[in-house]
Amino acid sequence: MKMRAAVLEQFGEPLVVQEVDLAEPRAGEVLVRLAACGVCHTDLYTASGADPSGYAPAVLGHEGAGVVEAVGEGVALVEPGDHVVTLFSPQCGRCEHCLDDRTNLCLAIRDQQNNGYMPDGSSRISRQDGEIRHFMGTSTFAEYTVMPEIALARIDPEAPLDRACLFACGLSTGLGAAINTAGVEAGSTCVVFGAGMVGLGAVAGCRLQGAERIISVDLSEERLELARGQGATETMLGGEAVVEAILEETGGFGADYTFEATGNVAVMRQAVESARMGWGLCTVAGVAGKGETLDIVPRLLITGRRVAGSSFGGVKGREGVPKLVDRWLAGELDVEPFVSHHLGLEEVNRGFELMEKGSGIRSVIDF
Amino acid sequence: MKMRAAVLEQFGEPLVVQEVDLAEPRAGEVLVRLAACGVCHTDLYTASGADPSGYAPAVLGHEGAGVVEAVGEGVALVEPGDHVVTLFSPQCGRCEHCLDDRTNLCLAIRDQQNNGYMPDGSSRISRQDGEIRHFMGTSTFAEYTVMPEIALARIDPEAPLDRACLFACGLSTGLGAAINTAGVEAGSTCVVFGAGMVGLGAVAGCRLQGAERIISVDLSEERLELARGQGATETMLGGEAVVEAILEETGGFGADYTFEATGNVAVMRQAVESARMGWGLCTVAGVAGKGETLDIVPRLLITGRRVAGSSFGGVKGREGVPKLVDRWLAGELDVEPFVSHHLGLEEVNRGFELMEKGSGIRSVIDF
Repeated sequence: MKMRAAVLEQFGEPLVVQEVDLAEPRAGEVLVRLAACGVCHTDLYTASGADPSGYAPAVLGHEGAGVVEAVGEGVALVEPGDHVVTLFSPQCGRCEHCLDDRTNLCLAIRDQQNNGYMPDGSSRISRQDGEIRHFMGTSTFAEYTVMPEIALARIDPEAPLDRACLFACGLSTGLGAAINTAGVEAGSTCVVFGAGMVGLGAVAGCRLQGAERIISVDLSEERLELARGQGATETMLGGEAVVEAILEETGGFGADYTFEATGNVAVMRQAVESARMGWGLCTVAGVAGKGETLDIVPRLLITGRRVAGSSFGGVKGREGVPKLVDRWLAGELDVEPFVSHHLGLEEVNRGFELMEKGSGIRSVIDF
Repeated sequence: MKMRAAVLEQFGEPLVVQEVDLAEPRAGEVLVRLAACGVCHTDLYTASGADPSGYAPAVLGHEGAGVVEAVGEGVALVEPGDHVVTLFSPQCGRCEHCLDDRTNLCLAIRDQQNNGYMPDGSSRISRQDGEIRHFMGTSTFAEYTVMPEIALARIDPEAPLDRACLFACGLSTGLGAAINTAGVEAGSTCVVFGAGMVGLGAVAGCRLQGAERIISVDLSEERLELARGQGATETMLGGEAVVEAILEETGGFGADYTFEATGNVAVMRQAVESARMGWGLCTVAGVAGKGETLDIVPRLLITGRRVAGSSFGGVKGREGVPKLVDRWLAGELDVEPFVSHHLGLEEVNRGFELMEKGSGIRSVIDF
């Protein structure tokens, strides 16, 4: 079938929206008609050429939500008409990691996915001059996509898809960092560095876990206002003096839980230094630049701080995303404020521009 | 009273064994007649002048064991005749940290202890030309010492004191890193970097926790032999290729638990890199040099590794040390091989020389 899609042709150049061919889903694969897709930093990171593992041509996009249109042979997990959120982090349910409660990093299709292919090693996207590769196993900057069934989370059809798509990446990452990775305890003090999609999700996650104090740190007053809306009890402008300010606010000790959601390694270091002596846990959720390191003074560890990291918030996607969506529908989460712009697919590059300008939290493409 | 003690007079110079005055224990304090004291790296670190918080003159030594000789006013935790292990990490039992299971870092007397004084801000040690300060709240390179009652662990009098002293620092640090800080699970795979006192203790701790595989890494074949004696199932010579070798030995994933017991930040980094994707925990027990940092590639965290640190093995001293000693007396631990040299107090500087040469594991001073 023919469809319109945003193709990364050349690193550092705008995506080119064009008509491409999409083949039918093969065994274990599903054809999804996309309803909405968020524009995320990871898309821009790859489009810019900064990601050393990037490739082109490829259809970008990974924060998608839509409706199952057709299924390939043997598909048992979804059926036509199901509402789904796309998962760049799949859940096969059978591998060593899926069977273990401690991790959500499914091992089933990593290699092929990282190379831009479906599990059988081929692409479903093409045009006259040849193959176009998938991106993150999702390629949701398009009217349709073909994806492995293990990479689709079936959600309540009551959930509006133009907000449900946020659960495909940023929002689940932030929520899960607090709920799963850190396992924030009720009554605790938390600090969240960064108030973008992931940081705001972490603030909301801390709130859902019953944290008593949630300090949001960002460079933008506008974002700090959004953080207050998600449950931050205090806010601080970021900068060099912020660790000292946090220690002052916490009796000289630091916070029980700190979260890093900026990808800046200097901020990661602040998040470690703001964690409480004795038992403070710093959870890194941001993605650092190539070659950068988080430099920790070992004494901070010896005196009881811990450091962890979180990919997709430790959420096992097929099981976990529907539950988070249910909490939203039950009124526990206010997702509306995250969607700052609605765009058409033709405007995808404007989504990148808005992101680079720091305008709003999320642009969502509606199909 | 008069006693002989090893005094740090000048940084970088040998300790000077001499007669000094020891005042009577005041309220809450205890006079201990020392029977034995291990010579530990921390003593040498301070004697060398490398420790920026060091001071002189002071009586060094902190890995002591002895017998209570007299008690000051109001002392309720020990009585004359009790056999005790000295604790540089006290346990008041009342502070916020003592009341919390997550940490052993008692807050009661930190400041005065760090400055070389008893909790009331004064020293019990002096000579004609003035005050001599305590070291780590212990000062056990001496025939006697005065210590706060909260810094003494009462142990089974059946335990030979010339080995019980090892529980005052290195051995408990290693054992506790595995038992308390990491909480090694039965059946797991562990890697311990460094096979000195702390590393060997960690190997033994992993064994006590029921680890299935324990890989000991060191630069010395002789020490690796000792590690096998403590329960290491595999050994490796350290070096640049060791991470790759560990990954190869663990199906490409890394170990469930890794321990760093060298204080070398490059080795700390290897310990992080050897921890398993998904859930591997790296526990840092070694003390790094001033200004050095542990540099971590954040991707290692994002993909599920965790980093923790351990001071005195997370052992709450008054409760925890007697239990470890009991396990030794019950035959669960073989402490004999750790004591490589027996010295008199006059030979304390030889203990430092042996340590610098890497000869044996521990020199113990017998009084």
